[in-house]
Amino acid sequence: MALIVQKYGGTSVGSLDRIRNVAARLKKTRDEGNQVVAVVSAMSGVTDGLLKMAHELTSQPSERELDVLVSTGEQQSIALVAMALQDIGVPAASITGRQAGIYTKGSHTRGRIADIDPSMMNAFLAEGKTLVVAGFQGVTPEGMIHTLGRGGSDLTAIAIAAAIKADVCQILTDVDGVYTCDPRIVPNARKLPEISYDEMLEMASSGSKVMQSRSVEFAKKYGVVFEVRSSLNSNPGTLVLEEHPAMENVVIRGISIERSQSRVTVTGIPDEPGMSAAILGALAEAEINLDMIISNIANDGYARHSFTMHSNDLGKAQAALKPVLEKLSSNAKIETESGIAKLSAVGIGMRSHSGVAATMFKALGDAGINIGMISTSEIKIAVTVDERSIEEAARAVHDAFHLDKEPV
Amino acid sequence: MALIVQKYGGTSVGSLDRIRNVAARLKKTRDEGNQVVAVVSAMSGVTDGLLKMAHELTSQPSERELDVLVSTGEQQSIALVAMALQDIGVPAASITGRQAGIYTKGSHTRGRIADIDPSMMNAFLAEGKTLVVAGFQGVTPEGMIHTLGRGGSDLTAIAIAAAIKADVCQILTDVDGVYTCDPRIVPNARKLPEISYDEMLEMASSGSKVMQSRSVEFAKKYGVVFEVRSSLNSNPGTLVLEEHPAMENVVIRGISIERSQSRVTVTGIPDEPGMSAAILGALAEAEINLDMIISNIANDGYARHSFTMHSNDLGKAQAALKPVLEKLSSNAKIETESGIAKLSAVGIGMRSHSGVAATMFKALGDAGINIGMISTSEIKIAVTVDERSIEEAARAVHDAFHLDKEPV
Repeated sequence: MALIVQKYGGTSVGSLDRIRNVAARLKKTRDEGNQVVAVVSAMSGVTDGLLKMAHELTSQPSERELDVLVSTGEQQSIALVAMALQDIGVPAASITGRQAGIYTKGSHTRGRIADIDPSMMNAFLAEGKTLVVAGFQGVTPEGMIHTLGRGGSDLTAIAIAAAIKADVCQILTDVDGVYTCDPRIVPNARKLPEISYDEMLEMASSGSKVMQSRSVEFAKKYGVVFEVRSSLNSNPGTLVLEEHPAMENVVIRGISIERSQSRVTVTGIPDEPGMSAAILGALAEAEINLDMIISNIANDGYARHSFTMHSNDLGKAQAALKPVLEKLSSNAKIETESGIAKLSAVGIGMRSHSGVAATMFKALGDAGINIGMISTSEIKIAVTVDERSIEEAARAVHDAFHLDKEPV
Repeated sequence: MALIVQKYGGTSVGSLDRIRNVAARLKKTRDEGNQVVAVVSAMSGVTDGLLKMAHELTSQPSERELDVLVSTGEQQSIALVAMALQDIGVPAASITGRQAGIYTKGSHTRGRIADIDPSMMNAFLAEGKTLVVAGFQGVTPEGMIHTLGRGGSDLTAIAIAAAIKADVCQILTDVDGVYTCDPRIVPNARKLPEISYDEMLEMASSGSKVMQSRSVEFAKKYGVVFEVRSSLNSNPGTLVLEEHPAMENVVIRGISIERSQSRVTVTGIPDEPGMSAAILGALAEAEINLDMIISNIANDGYARHSFTMHSNDLGKAQAALKPVLEKLSSNAKIETESGIAKLSAVGIGMRSHSGVAATMFKALGDAGINIGMISTSEIKIAVTVDERSIEEAARAVHDAFHLDKEPV
């Protein structure tokens, strides 16, 4: 008998019929001899409807009250899923975030899990109940309702799996698992049987939309092995786990791409201490998430700083930089480029294999694709290319590393 | 500065516009120099919508899960009312039943308030916040969500007023206050400036729909003075309070009527110990609320038991009685009468005034109205009449006691 945590997103519980399907699936897992804890999101559409009301009522709803309002969505779905389970003869109990003992810190609408007191969950499990826990929510130590922000239900599932020492944590979603690349772009992309936490993190932060980084980080920190799999079929998915020696044999695990990027390059800044800090500080204050950051000295002796960001942030970035640059140097100039995309090749095998960058650049060169910026980490090589070439670039790199084939 | 609890029902918060009105009204009370705690129900329609989903999902939703589901309705309205207050510059905080420290006992969907720990409310009040508390809900000592059943938000308001030692508790509703009789039936009915708890209880249990008995009982137990007043205007309403000597000068405070009653009379039962208990026990087991109960010995030496009940329960009562009567006596017979109504005259002055029944019966006799059953308590005389005569009966008794005139 295994103790299994299964997370179902808003689409999976998006109607009463789908709720019945989730219940049937939970029953099946239970009938196979397992104890089951389901973590569910709000029915799709419910959260948006509540937010709409709040914004009709006031232009600036307080985040504390948004949490109180929005957290009702998950509370409704847990009650409904528990009823659907009981209807097919499964003893079940719904558990709110507070009842699950999920204590949070941080600010409203984007809380972080600080601690879990699983005593109520353990008591119900001891009674043989299947639990249905509200994802995305918890309470502060003072008892204020907190939601966990984007990807919060995944985080709840992983944190609960750690707290109740589950054998398996399954993230059930609308994809089959983690692929070597997005199969809509690379048709011969292959589903990975496993991927390490670090690789998953690099994939997440370079555009793979399967999971938010912080859920993966949490799983890594607490050693929670989880599986990303489909909520629509019973195929095995992808296990995400701590790396083991055999994993290093694979040079590149996967490729992720990110579109709609823009580059800002600042030139004409004296190469003096404090200059970079002033520039990056202005962008951070404007809450712009920078992706690649490259600095160098140009031929004219001035420093040259380039950043990439989502194109939506470009205008805000220019506005934030203008006053700072005026103060720093009369020669300062801003140069921008939109319509670029980023391709990242990720794999822990890179650490022990040389020539990875060369293989990748050759593949792109052979395909006639020009490389813009380059940035690397220990287990990732990222390049920017013209957005119109990104799909071709992905296919070329995927082929160059033979990612369509099982590694030997 | 007074500390005021105001309770708003589901209609009062039934749309975003109405929520804005409630916020404006709370602000006005606050601007007059008071501290305010609002207790609100779910937006009208929300609870029914949730129940409908539950019943579509399963024919017998568990009461525990119904509580989890339905309690989200109030949680949504408190967040929205708090946002609306903040939008007009009032510092406000929503408080769920659990946060209000409302601890309950009893069964799910009809919990009773056992205790209140007002520490979070007091802390927010000390910060100068206007509080918006979810009516109708609490938690068990084990942390399970509990709803309080019909009239639960009134009960919440009165219990909170007791716990935070409020100066006033106002139940804002769609009637102006408590009247000497229903003004739709007796056009010259008069709004009462005050009524005692005991009179209010007798009115409630004899058909006046203003408030549930248990809220009045709770107020009486804890000495909470409350006012029933309109949510639509600022007219003074009716104070409900412990009786004081001057109140005894009024013989009859008010008249309430209850329609759709039926009588069941059981005859031919030997006058032996245990017989009444067997009959009443069978009806109690079938969860039939009896109203008047009259027993006597008939001329044939057999006992004769009559009960009144809501006509909806008549069939159920007959079915419950049949097997018992067959066992008790071969002479037992059931006789039923529908289409009757009850008129109750209520007043603590009855205790010290004689001739009240005589005045009432004479008024009915003069109007040519036949009296069926009669039952009395220390402060109430109730009679049944043909349902078609009930309005005329109410007017006749109202006139006989000059209830349209201020007492001197």
